[in-house]
Order: sequence, then structure tokens, then C-alpha cells
Amino acid sequence: MKKVAVVLSGCGFQDGSEITEAVSTLIALSDLGATYQVFAPDIQAPSTNHLTHQKSGTHSVLAESARISRGKISSLKELKASTFDALAFPGGFGAATVLCDFAGRGSQCQVNPEVERVIEEFFKAEKPIAAICIAPALIARVLGKHGVTVTIGSDKETAAEIEKTGAHHEQCAVDDYVTDREHRIITTPAYMYDDAKPNQVFAGVSAAIKELVEMA
Amino acid sequence: MKKVAVVLSGCGFQDGSEITEAVSTLIALSDLGATYQVFAPDIQAPSTNHLTHQKSGTHSVLAESARISRGKISSLKELKASTFDALAFPGGFGAATVLCDFAGRGSQCQVNPEVERVIEEFFKAEKPIAAICIAPALIARVLGKHGVTVTIGSDKETAAEIEKTGAHHEQCAVDDYVTDREHRIITTPAYMYDDAKPNQVFAGVSAAIKELVEMA
Repeated sequence: MKKVAVVLSGCGFQDGSEITEAVSTLIALSDLGATYQVFAPDIQAPSTNHLTHQKSGTHSVLAESARISRGKISSLKELKASTFDALAFPGGFGAATVLCDFAGRGSQCQVNPEVERVIEEFFKAEKPIAAICIAPALIARVLGKHGVTVTIGSDKETAAEIEKTGAHHEQCAVDDYVTDREHRIITTPAYMYDDAKPNQVFAGVSAAIKELVEMA
Repeated sequence: MKKVAVVLSGCGFQDGSEITEAVSTLIALSDLGATYQVFAPDIQAPSTNHLTHQKSGTHSVLAESARISRGKISSLKELKASTFDALAFPGGFGAATVLCDFAGRGSQCQVNPEVERVIEEFFKAEKPIAAICIAPALIARVLGKHGVTVTIGSDKETAAEIEKTGAHHEQCAVDDYVTDREHRIITTPAYMYDDAKPNQVFAGVSAAIKELVEMA
């Protein structure tokens, strides 16, 4: 039975993990008979009202992420690649504002040190990594030096920024995914297509997670 | 194309809608080619930290629900049964603490007036209603006088409380659902089985929502 670590960044696409992407990841993993453990950084981050789009105060990324995982969650500090077969990052703005600051600084972004450590650990252990929506930008920032190939769909500006890290970008439809077999990186665009429907996101994420578990 | 109204109670099973149940509902609806509009009461409700289980302050039920629906949400006051074919209530404690107070008062609970109005409107218009997890208790409180049949799984104490409303209770497995054809009520237990896996919840909710759309 494969064991997969899932890293969240909060609960809601404007300030954390995109909820449909995160839930689709967990449905797909359980449907494949894989076990999983959910992690998030134990830090504070700005909170956004999802109705008014206004920022207001801060919240605990770990406690907000726990909404998605029904309270079962661990601090990212506890995640060791040695005890898992694969790693998955759902998207949402949190992947580009909490796990790193790609949303503000693009290819020059800084990555949360624990997130960077975890990506490096899985990569060095030759264990596969899946990244959804904008999370491939995070993978590009850390692993672009190795020439990894990722997709964020078809947005040219974001793709150009990703290629500045040394990573390659491939276009991809919402219900499909891109595999970099050499570097064991699997990516799917999901809500990078803002008008995507939940079943299309579920289809793309399910297919990417199936590839992740098969590669693990 | 069938049009379904989905009513949420927040974002997270401890103080609002159960997230996997809500997302499964939206994936199933879009996969069936149905359109949907998401609603929630425009009220404040107590907020619960999903890591520590401690209550802390209040939040906007409408703004929290908007996390699940990616900002696209309307106040429950705007929901009229005349413009929809069916109604769906995902579960989570919010269904028993925000939409009504069944969690505290059982069969004697009070129902949010807008929630009660909406359930009565769909019932009188002979349009089907789906309820997930603990949300069938809400349906029982409003429609128990008509002798509706619902399921909340296999919890005897909750089932006994539901039967005090005049409703009938049928046991049901996590990946199955119960249909009351006479009253057009479809219910599925989901996370009433606390150890359920996401794919089992998705299976039960998908099957129930398919029945809802077919009946609409």
C-alpha cells in the first residue's frame, strides 16, 4: 500500500489550498487504496474574505488546513521523505503566497524553508511529486535547476515566468496532466483554468494522482 | 438541463459544511450536466479551530461558505423554489448548529427561518430534496409531520431522536442512499460514519445526487 504525503496551505483558493483540488486529491488517493497523511506549515498567513475579496487579519495555516482534512493534520516540520512513497501539492493561491511568494515575485520568489527541504528530500530520494494548479511554480522554483518539465495550463505570462527558473513548460488541458518521467514530476492545471467545472478538475487531478501512485 | 440549489452552512465539519461532502455534491452535479447555484444564510455563527477543537469568536456563514464555491454564492434569502428543479444540503455540524440547533436540542430544535421556508417551498412544489450526513435531521424536523423517511446511517441515538419528529429512519451504508419516492427525499449518511474514507463518501454522495437529478 503506497503512502503519500499531501501538503496544504490553508482552506480556500484566495488565501490557501483550492478546496476542490485538495478534496479531489484525497478522494483519488483513497480510491486507489493508497494511504495518506496531510501536512501544512505551522505558520500564520493573511486571511482573505472569499465573498468581498478583502484581506482581514491573519490565521493559522495549520488550523485552516485542518478543515479540509477533518482535523487530522501534522506540522510540515514532521514530514520526512524516508517514511513516504510520494508527495502531492494541491494548488490555490496559498501555494503561491504561503508556501512561496511566487504570486508577488515570480521566478525570483522565496520558498518556505520547510517546503523547500521537503521537495529536495523527495527529489533526492527519487520519489515522485505531484503538483496541481499554480503549485508547479513552486516545484519549478526549487527544481528548475534540474530542468524539470511542468504545466500550469496555457497562461503564457505565468509559463514564461516559470521558464525563467530553468524549468520547461508544456501546455495542458484541464482534464489532463503532464509527466516528467526523468525527474518524476506530475502536474495538472486544474483551476488555472478559472472557468473549469468541478468534474473537470476532479478528472485532471484523479488522473495525475493515479500516475503519481503508479510511479511511487 | 436541471438546475439545483445547494445550501451550505460554512466551511469545515466542526462549525459548517463538511468539505468533502460539499465538494462531492458539486463534482457530481457538474458531472451529470446539471447546473447549480450555491446559497448560505447571511448570518454570523461561532467559529471552531479545527486543530484544537476550541471555539473562538464568530464568522460570516456566507463568506466562509464562499471558500468552497470559489466566491460564487448568494444569500439564502434570494433562493426561490420556482427557479430551481431540486435542492441539496451537504452535512457537517453546521447543518445541526447553524441551519438548525438539532445538535443541542434534538427533535425539539429550531430551524433557521429561511432554511425552513426553502424546505417547505421545494416540498410543496413537489421538487426533490437531497440531504447528506446529519442534514436529514433538518429535513425530519421540517417535514417529519408528513412521515418522510430518511437515513443518518446506523447511529441508534440520533435515529431515535429523528423518529420523534414523526419521520421514519432507515439504516444505510456509507456508500449507499435511501430514497423516499412518495415525498421525494433522498438521504445518504457520508461522514455520520466518522471513519469513512473520502472515496466512500464520494460514492454515496454521487449516487444520491444522481438520484436527485433523475427525480428532478
